[in-house]
Amino acid sequence: MHPTPPNRLNPKPELSPALRALIARAEHALGEALPSEDLPPIELHRAMRYAVLGGGKRLRPLLTYATGHALGNDGPELDAPACAVELIHAYSLVHDDLPAMDDDAMRRGRPTCHIVFGEAMAILAGDALQALAFEILARGNRARGMDMLSTLGHACGAEGMAGGQALDLTAVGRSLTVTELEHMHACKTGALIRASVQLGALTAGADAQAIEGLNRYATAVGLAFQVRDDILDVEGESAVIGKTAGKDAAAGKPTFPSIIGLDASRARLAELIDTALGAIAPFGERGVLLRELAHYAANRVH
Amino acid sequence: MHPTPPNRLNPKPELSPALRALIARAEHALGEALPSEDLPPIELHRAMRYAVLGGGKRLRPLLTYATGHALGNDGPELDAPACAVELIHAYSLVHDDLPAMDDDAMRRGRPTCHIVFGEAMAILAGDALQALAFEILARGNRARGMDMLSTLGHACGAEGMAGGQALDLTAVGRSLTVTELEHMHACKTGALIRASVQLGALTAGADAQAIEGLNRYATAVGLAFQVRDDILDVEGESAVIGKTAGKDAAAGKPTFPSIIGLDASRARLAELIDTALGAIAPFGERGVLLRELAHYAANRVH
Repeated sequence: MHPTPPNRLNPKPELSPALRALIARAEHALGEALPSEDLPPIELHRAMRYAVLGGGKRLRPLLTYATGHALGNDGPELDAPACAVELIHAYSLVHDDLPAMDDDAMRRGRPTCHIVFGEAMAILAGDALQALAFEILARGNRARGMDMLSTLGHACGAEGMAGGQALDLTAVGRSLTVTELEHMHACKTGALIRASVQLGALTAGADAQAIEGLNRYATAVGLAFQVRDDILDVEGESAVIGKTAGKDAAAGKPTFPSIIGLDASRARLAELIDTALGAIAPFGERGVLLRELAHYAANRVH
Repeated sequence: MHPTPPNRLNPKPELSPALRALIARAEHALGEALPSEDLPPIELHRAMRYAVLGGGKRLRPLLTYATGHALGNDGPELDAPACAVELIHAYSLVHDDLPAMDDDAMRRGRPTCHIVFGEAMAILAGDALQALAFEILARGNRARGMDMLSTLGHACGAEGMAGGQALDLTAVGRSLTVTELEHMHACKTGALIRASVQLGALTAGADAQAIEGLNRYATAVGLAFQVRDDILDVEGESAVIGKTAGKDAAAGKPTFPSIIGLDASRARLAELIDTALGAIAPFGERGVLLRELAHYAANRVH
């Protein structure tokens, strides 16, 4: 068994050239959006760039671009929302990895931000990344910009990502029902995944009917991504998934397999992907990237 | 010598009834803006409300309201920006007090957020408060809303508050020039104080000339506030200033008195207040609240 090389050497071989090109586009836009390491405060800027530019699946910006594509828009106006959702995701990982939270020393095959820059700087880098996400989205005078900003704010806050993490904290060692588990994930990771699609839809000027279908898609894909994560935690190999297999179960975190079993988890995953694909059927051929991302969420091996 | 009672029992006796009424207005608006403790995630909501509603000078919302007043606007549309700047300030204190940062166990005469709710929940509460600030400002469709959001984002980020805190971290134990010290404060506390005034100005539809004067005012008041803080750290009594006197000096933090001496610090403070008052002279009688806040920044005893 050969360990999988780091992402940068072998960038997502399971994705199509179209999605890999969009990853490169997102990473270029992020590199431009982040403050330069040549300008003070240098240490903070270095920590911010380290946290964002060290690889990752880029699922959220891909969803933004893929949603724009489904609505007939591939324009540069998608770059700001694509960057914004990835900056929020990156900040959440930095804070999540802190000793007071999940206490993770490695992420994406590298030492985590607080290991390299210290805890205080990692807290500040996360804080500054969140502010940068909103600033980038507010710059310029985009149509429906205020809707986009309130969507992102809501997705990040106490009713979204931060709220989901709080539910997660209080869930450790408790037994949850599957409904409670799904609600926790709908907040913790689902809210930002839905926002990634919604920002793409707002940018591309989607109508209410299109937005309704896209929301159903995003809700299903977000949950599928998490169910897959829990299945990988059980059956994956550490070298492939890039983190310690069985870690969640060992930490007493409730997972889909621990609550409903592995077979039912696989069935739930298949059902979610059906829901996602059904919701975007009306987009026909233009939904090709969204379809690929749904399959990726369900079948990824890390 | 009698110790000063907690703020809640003796709310800012040195302020005029007009400013005290505005503090009550800000606190009411904050109470409405924050999520209810009766709704889940309850623990997160409790931590957020604890961090924001436990007293404080409310200088930033007062500056927003006072700027609106100077421009002839006292309307309810000032409440959202006033809340936004105070939520950002509150989140920054929660993160600043963490063990990895300043490691403060007391603030405003009460245990700090992480002492009461734990470090992980305090980190999340700070994160959620930052998101809420942007969400509140993005709700509704206010004129110049995008300008307000990019102003706030810039003030909070790597070129503003978070950047100033990073400079502060790296300054401990080093000797700074007074120019470096002023730059650090211009970022760390100055950026949000300027934003508080700018958001009031944008809400009230100020023209470029008025904004220019208000920026000079806010820059001077922000720095004066900090010079006064450093002077209080030297000559204040712990019971009155609400924190340990001499703490900054003992921690090896550069201060104005330690760099230029106490007399020169007092002279610099007087000069800053002159600058602030001169900058708002064109507002005449309508500048009354801004003038009072400048004097308060220079003369406060805690």
